[in-house]
Parts: sequence; C-alpha cells; structure tokens
Amino acid sequence: MTKQSAGNQAGNPPDNPTEQGDEAYAYPLLIKQLLHTTLATCPEQQIVYGDEVRYTYWGFRHRLGQLASALAGAGVSAGDTVAVMDWDSHRYLECYFAVPMMGAVLMTANVRLSSGQLLYTLNHARAGVLLVHRDFLPMLENIRARLTTVRSFILIGDDVEDARHPAGFHGEYEALINASGPDYAFPDFDERTRATTFYTTGTTGLPKGVSFSHRQLVLHTLAGMAALGSAREQGRVHREDVYMPITPMFHVHAWGMPYIATAMGLKQVYPGRYAPDTLLRLIEREAVTFSHCVPTLLDMILASPAAASVDLSRWKVIVGGSLLSEGLTRAARARGIDVYTGYGMSETCPLLTLAQARGETAEPGATADIGVRTRAGTPLPLVDLRIVDEHMRDVPRDGKSAGEVVVRAPWATQGYLGDAQASAALWAGGYLHTNDIGVIDAEGNLRITDRIKDVIKTGGEWISSLELENLLSTHPGVREAAVIGVHDVRWGERPLALVVLAPGHESVTPEQLQAHVKRVAERGLISRFAVPERLLIVEALERTSVGKINKRALRERYQDSAAKRKPPTRGADRSRAPRR
Amino acid sequence: MTKQSAGNQAGNPPDNPTEQGDEAYAYPLLIKQLLHTTLATCPEQQIVYGDEVRYTYWGFRHRLGQLASALAGAGVSAGDTVAVMDWDSHRYLECYFAVPMMGAVLMTANVRLSSGQLLYTLNHARAGVLLVHRDFLPMLENIRARLTTVRSFILIGDDVEDARHPAGFHGEYEALINASGPDYAFPDFDERTRATTFYTTGTTGLPKGVSFSHRQLVLHTLAGMAALGSAREQGRVHREDVYMPITPMFHVHAWGMPYIATAMGLKQVYPGRYAPDTLLRLIEREAVTFSHCVPTLLDMILASPAAASVDLSRWKVIVGGSLLSEGLTRAARARGIDVYTGYGMSETCPLLTLAQARGETAEPGATADIGVRTRAGTPLPLVDLRIVDEHMRDVPRDGKSAGEVVVRAPWATQGYLGDAQASAALWAGGYLHTNDIGVIDAEGNLRITDRIKDVIKTGGEWISSLELENLLSTHPGVREAAVIGVHDVRWGERPLALVVLAPGHESVTPEQLQAHVKRVAERGLISRFAVPERLLIVEALERTSVGKINKRALRERYQDSAAKRKPPTRGADRSRAPRR
Repeated sequence: MTKQSAGNQAGNPPDNPTEQGDEAYAYPLLIKQLLHTTLATCPEQQIVYGDEVRYTYWGFRHRLGQLASALAGAGVSAGDTVAVMDWDSHRYLECYFAVPMMGAVLMTANVRLSSGQLLYTLNHARAGVLLVHRDFLPMLENIRARLTTVRSFILIGDDVEDARHPAGFHGEYEALINASGPDYAFPDFDERTRATTFYTTGTTGLPKGVSFSHRQLVLHTLAGMAALGSAREQGRVHREDVYMPITPMFHVHAWGMPYIATAMGLKQVYPGRYAPDTLLRLIEREAVTFSHCVPTLLDMILASPAAASVDLSRWKVIVGGSLLSEGLTRAARARGIDVYTGYGMSETCPLLTLAQARGETAEPGATADIGVRTRAGTPLPLVDLRIVDEHMRDVPRDGKSAGEVVVRAPWATQGYLGDAQASAALWAGGYLHTNDIGVIDAEGNLRITDRIKDVIKTGGEWISSLELENLLSTHPGVREAAVIGVHDVRWGERPLALVVLAPGHESVTPEQLQAHVKRVAERGLISRFAVPERLLIVEALERTSVGKINKRALRERYQDSAAKRKPPTRGADRSRAPRR
Repeated sequence: MTKQSAGNQAGNPPDNPTEQGDEAYAYPLLIKQLLHTTLATCPEQQIVYGDEVRYTYWGFRHRLGQLASALAGAGVSAGDTVAVMDWDSHRYLECYFAVPMMGAVLMTANVRLSSGQLLYTLNHARAGVLLVHRDFLPMLENIRARLTTVRSFILIGDDVEDARHPAGFHGEYEALINASGPDYAFPDFDERTRATTFYTTGTTGLPKGVSFSHRQLVLHTLAGMAALGSAREQGRVHREDVYMPITPMFHVHAWGMPYIATAMGLKQVYPGRYAPDTLLRLIEREAVTFSHCVPTLLDMILASPAAASVDLSRWKVIVGGSLLSEGLTRAARARGIDVYTGYGMSETCPLLTLAQARGETAEPGATADIGVRTRAGTPLPLVDLRIVDEHMRDVPRDGKSAGEVVVRAPWATQGYLGDAQASAALWAGGYLHTNDIGVIDAEGNLRITDRIKDVIKTGGEWISSLELENLLSTHPGVREAAVIGVHDVRWGERPLALVVLAPGHESVTPEQLQAHVKRVAERGLISRFAVPERLLIVEALERTSVGKINKRALRERYQDSAAKRKPPTRGADRSRAPRR
C-alpha cells in the first residue's frame, strides 16, 4: 500500500501525471477481491452440489482457507500448477478461487480428451499436483507412469465418508480439508500473475495452452456483470437469480460465469455429471433461473421426457459454442425459456458479445424475435470488435458485408503457452483473430456467418454453411444439420448438407428438405446458388471432444460421397455414420 | 501491442507465471475505451443540453476529435492541465472525454468557491488552459492577473452564433470546434496516467487536490454499471434509462455517472444551471428516468409549484452528499420516485455503496421500506469496506456497534496533490479513512451515523447527530434540521438542535419538536440521554460551497447560544441566521 504517493515535500503537484503512486499495486485486481461484497452482503446465500452438498458462502470461504492449507501441505506454492479432473462441483468452484488466490495456477484438465492428449496437456502445463475424481482413475492409470511433472495426487470422491485413496496418493479431498485450518493468509501479488490455464483443441495439431491472469478474470467478471445486468429485461441477470452451469467447468472456466455468479452473490447449483433428468430435477428443486450451455445440451434437455412436467418459463439460458439455430430457439421459446446467444472463444475468456434485445424490442412484454436471440449480439463494455478484410481494413457495418471478426479486449489471452508462432498468428495486425466470419449491422449486432475454414467457396462466391444449417433446422423434421464444402470440378466447391432427422420424422426425404431450402431461396432470403444439390440423411454427426460438430472429420468422411453415389441413399449412409 | 508474449522458443511454458506478456500495456484501461460499445451499438442515441443542443453519440464522438484538435491548437499536450468553469452541459461531457483522451488532465474547477480559493486551486493544479463560461467572466476578472500558470483562455457561450470573446482569449468554444477537424488520433498510454483533478473543500484549511487516473475511472465505471444493473428492481439502472445529472459536474465528476451513462449508451440530458422548474420541464419533456443529487436539491424540486403537474413516478434518484432523511424519502415516495442513498466521498471517485433492496424486499411489487432507502447500503463490487475502532480493529457487524468507515477500492485516490502529510493521514493503517462513523448489519448494509468530527460526546457516550436530525425531519413541521455538540460543564458536550420550519408550519414551537423527539426516546428507539434540551428555530442553515450544511460554522455561531439565552427565543435567533 502506497500511503504517501502524491507529489513531493515542496507542496507542489508532481510534474509527471503518472507519478502519483502506483494504484495498480496499491489495489491489484485479484480474484480474492471478487469475494468482498458477496461475503459482506449475502454470507448465508447457498451453494449446492447435486443431492450431496449444501452450504453457505461463509462455509465456502471457510473451505477456501482449508483447501489452500491442504494444498500447501501437499507442497503447492506460488507459481505451481494445480490440475483438476472433476465433474461440475462445489469442489471445482473452490479450486477456481483457492488455487489462484494462493498465487498458484489452476489447470482445468479436459477429461474428454484422449489419454494421449490429456497426458500431453498435463506435462506441457507442468502440473505439479493433480486432483482427480474417482471416476477418472482408470483414465489416470493409463497415463500415470508417463506424467513428468506431477509430484502429488489428491483423490476426489463423492462419498465423503470414504477417504480411501490409491497407493501413492497424498490423500482424499474431504479428509484433507477436514484436517486443515481455515486461516490461510491469501497474499496480495501482481495482478498480471497467471491464474488459470487450459488447453484448446482445434481439429488439427496438438492442444494449445491458453491462460488468463487475475487481472483478466476480474475485468471479464466486472464487464460480464455490467453487460448481463444492464439489459432492460430480455437476457438480463440480477442478484436474485439462481445459477447452474451446464458448460463443463474445464471449458474456459465455464465461460467465466462461476466468477460472475460468485461476485454477484447468486445462489449457485453445481450439477455434477450432466444427465438431462438430473439437470431438470435440479432446475425444478432449486428454482434455477440462469444457465448456459452448448446447443446440443439444450436440445437434449428439451427432448428429455422429464422436461414435459418441469416449468422452464423462468429459465434464462445463454447458448454458445456453436450457432443457436432458429429451430432450437423456437423449441426453447415454446417452453418459455429466455434463450439467447453468447459469443466468444477459449482465447477470449470467453465472453465477447451477448444477444440481448435493445431499444424497442427490450421493453417489458415485447417478445424479442428469433433473429435477436440467434445472432451473436452486441459487445461487452471495453470490447473493441471489428470485422475486417484480409488486409485488416474495416468492412462496412451494413448487416450484409462479411469479414473476419477481430477483437481487442482487456481479457483476451496474450498468446498460446510456449507457442510463439501460433501466438503471433493469433495477434496478427494487433488484433486477436477469431477465425470467424461475421456481419455487423448499424446497431452493432454481430451475426456469425461462418468459420473461416468452413465457409464454402463456390464459383467465386462465399456461401455461409451456418446459414444453410440454420435454414434446415427450421424444418420440423430436422434435429440437426451440418453443411460442408465438397470438391466440385466446375465450381471449386459445392455445399453438401448432412441432416439428422428428429424422432417421429423418419419418413422425411432428402428431396423434401431440399424443397424446403429452395422455397426460401425463391423468396430471395438466400442465394439460389446456395441451395445444396446434395443432401444426406445420417444417424449422427461426428463431434469434437467439447461437443461441437467436427466439420473437419465430416469433410474427410464425406468429401467424395457425392461422386461415389448419385443420388445418395439413406440406407447406405446410415451404415457409415457414427453412432452416439 | 505485445504479439509474441507467451513463453519461449523452446516450446515450454514460462517458469514465471507473470511472464506471459504485459496485458496491462497491451490493453490499458483508458477512458476512450468506454466509447467502443456505445458507438457500435447506439450511435444514434441522443445527448441533449437544455433547450439549446441535441445531437447523437456519433456527433459527440465527432466533436471529441474536433475539441482535441482545437485544444492541441491552443497548445495542449499530454500532461497539461485543462481547467473548465461551466454549468452542466454537453460541452462539459465533451471535456470529460476529450481532455483525458489526449493524455491531458481535466480540472473541474469549482465555481462555487470564493475567488481566493478558486485562484488557489487553479494555480496549485497548474492549469495551463482555462475554458470559462461567459457567466463566470466576472469571477475570472477578479483573479486573472494572479493566475500563474494559465497560458490560454477559451470562452464558452450558450449563444453559438456569438463568437465574441474578451481580449487575450484564444477563442470561443464553438468557433474553435467548427474550425477544427475531427480526425484527432487519440493515443494509447499508461492506464495510470492522471485523467482528472479537482479540489475538495473541508471546513478548515485550503482546498485539497484529489485526482484520478484512467484506470481508476474505468474501474469505477465498470463496477458502477455492475452494481446499478444487478439490483432486482428497486434502484436499478438499465440501457433504456434516460439520464440527467443534478450534481454539478465539477463535483467528483458528477459522481462518475456521466462516464457510466456514456458506457451504457443512455440518452443523456444536461440541464445547464440548476433551477427547479427547468429541471422539472426537462424531466417531463425528455422522459428522464435517472438522476442523482444532494438532498437539498431534491427538496427544492419537490417543493417547486411546477412539480405538482409532472409525473415523477418513473424517476430514479440517487441521493448523496448528505444524509437522505426519512422525511424527504417519504415526500419523494409519495410522488412515486425511486429514491435511495448512494454513499461515497470526493476521495473515492466517489461511489462506495448503494442502498438497493436485496432478497425479499427486492422482489417486484415489494415496496422497499424507508430504512432500506436511507441507509448507505451495500458496497460495490471490489470495495473492501470495514468499520473499525481507533486501533483499526474490526467492530462487530451487528447493526449496532459503531466504528469508523475505512475502505480499499481500486478507484480510491492515492492521496492529496502535493500534500504528503494529509495523504498519509488519509491512508493511515493501509485503508482510506472516510472520517464517517457507521454501523454494518449482517447483510452488509452500512448506515452512517455521524461524521467523526460531528459526533456528540456526552457523558462518555456518543450521540449520533445524524440520527437526531433524521428523527426531527420526520416531524411534518420540519423542513431541515442540524444537530451540533455544544460545550457543557457537566457532560462535556450536549446536543443543540437547529431547525428550519416547513412552509405553512410557522406556528410549530421548539417545545412541540422536543416532545416529538421525547416520544421516540420513550419508545426506546433512541437513548433518552440523546434528547436535546436545547432547540432553536432558525431561518436557514449555513452551507458549504458544495451545498452541505456547514456544521463547523454552526458550531462557531451557536457554541455559546445556550449559555447566553435560556430559553432561546425564535425571534432573536431569526435575526442571527443567515438568509438564503
């Protein structure tokens, strides 16, 4: 704390306006400071873990001290990396806070990776301590001998009475907490200290390490609170909401929402392993009003038989990760869900934009239309978001001209861990490149039209695969759709549509779906040139480890399908499609 | 922009977790960045100045470039101080942004100071350029010859056609803007660069200079947005609100609200010189829904004959500067105004707490009770607020135990300009001392019970002067009240109550008011020891230059009144009281 910072003894103000004490160090932006207001104002608010645990924020704070003491006992000190393999739980939330508050780095290990990828990421991040849920012990056994940096293992189990742990483990989470005192002194340190790290998996190459500092997470939290709170009605989050994540906590720290929920003092509900009926039961029992997830999970929840009897009309759901389709939006709206898009990426902490209604559509009672909810929306405060051409020149904000989305934000990652080349490409031209193609209208609404690598280049034009997928999703017979570019001798590329039919609509034919697309094209809403001549009905679409549709795999699988089979038959393709 | 910041060429993450690029410099927190989202999302939103000016945020941004070009033409460069003497106007808002965005320092000169104090502050701050409204030219003429640092004067006039300016002036604001291009390149620089400065006037000594950096103002804006937005209903501000300040823009940058309103993209209305009927006309015509002011101004507006015909039921008003009394709160509530307290001080940018309802009282339809609105409320995010005894030990948060309010916040000033001794006292023990006495309850609600110097020490007990004033204000005959401690041989000090009667209640007697206080004491709500034996009815209460009741002056004036006149008579005191 700088106490005498202003000016000099002569009684004059300093000449240099920056010389008045260094408030960046007098009050560094640290994750622990997100707790001040919450502990002062709602210490009795609840944090719930499935059917297992229910405690207050005071209890949470108490356990943060115990956890830090226990980790210190396991040898953790400032700068160490502590990796976690767990389902979404109160324990994960404890690690979100206690580990960075010690000055250590929380690594949220991706339990959906292959063993080889998981091993690579743990070694690359130099994880020194690994907390692992009992369910992931078989995965750990596959790689344990090849872990090069882990010195200490801690077991996590849901049966708090059962403190047994495998040979060579330091102990079991609850037993260690119970044996530790709460009075750990969380220090002040430089706000640029790394707080979290995780690995992002593209469809090619090794996972890339992304990390965020305390400063970045605090700023992301503040700006997220400001954006979520300032909407008139649709899409807004307030202090009386009840929060439950349905985005894995290992994925971009559950979109940063647990930090936001904690700083707002919300009741929080952690669901453990995701299962639609468990999630629905928690939504009902705990009166959950605010969640976020990828489209697939919302689709699974709505399709669950248990959903019919649960009131979802007070539930706000931010959907991200993949495009929120019109079809899914209509299905969610039919249940009264305030569903809308959040846009961002692993490299941006992740929030960049939210699709909240503004102006007239924001008035109470006004129904924000589907288009408002499915676009990426408007930037959070401080986000400098542009769409640019390949020479970094701004593209007109006319709602039509497409360009790559590039951003600057105080919470954008500075680069990939130990990969200077990829970092330089990420920040080429001084802006972070999202590799997404989008359009922006005069009110600043961003709409993502494609991934750079998924855009279909045909006869010199660009066709948006997302637009076609969205259009297909509006057909009642379509559960989900993917459109990819396949080689074409004449046009370079042509779109190939892959469709999974909705239950009860097995009789829908490719010709009917093509007619659906053609009708829209005839109304001038999409280019007639975009109507795909080739459409396959498949059992399922291949996905990446985080649940996104894997277009690279689809392109490899279906590249030559059109050439080989004319016209494609349903039966033949079913036999080739992967089963879920 | 650091492009290659992560790790080293060997492909390993860096050992030191702070060594991953310096995001504090890659994206410094600068005032200009508050404009990104607003210009992208609501460029057509309006900014209004009285009956004179109406333009859009695009127009505003255009003029920021012109103003910076004009100021550069007047010799302003980074580090220079530009002082402004103006009423609340769009021009002041332009200066709030353009001056700091140039890297210069905006000094908001207090036009209510005496000439001598004004001269002192302009010289002490080393103001290089002075923008002065035509109305303040006589004040300027008094001191112009003694200004030691001002090199250039710019005239501000409300008649945009009239560009005449006094001899020796560089030019007139509108004429200079019209002659300047909009394409000024606002640079990036260190976020700790000083952005604003102004002088705080206590009741003793010279005015003290307080200043805030870009970082502090950006963090204050973000946290303010988060706090204002996250309330369930009562006291919340959202993007569709219409903002009008009624706190002078020279006073703690109008509580930072113009920055918040701009970052939220609100329609903004600047009223010029305050006059109740002008303010009411603007509230009605522009559909103003959000303001802030000191109690006196709200009282004047409600008492204005013009108020009767204006619908105030959609108006949110944050009251600060002095205690929001129960009486004024009831009067405002009777008109449907969502009135509540904001607490802070010049040294804290200023927001520390807001009296928003939480929990059950926050549900729509629930009427937050008077006690919720009149307390100081709960801290903004990141504010570390404590009440402590004289040894900096925490006092229990039981709603009863009183202690001094001390704080840390990322936007607390680091000290007084060129006054190391006062700065050290301000930050004694590592926390900023507010010199306010308060109590905190288990839900974190702060209630200010007194100023340290105003607390009445009687027979070993502390009596809260604010509590007594508040109690007196609940009597229908009382317009305002001040309670001060006066010497007492037996008890050390005893309270003396000074009361201004409400219009139409001129027949109320001191005895009736004492009986009112006594009844409350008999119900056990205040100590019987606190009932003042001495109560004077006066015409008015002396105020400081910023409109607060000047208790030091009252103590000087009335210290011996009780001794001299027993019992005090109304007529005699009326002759002594200052007239407004």
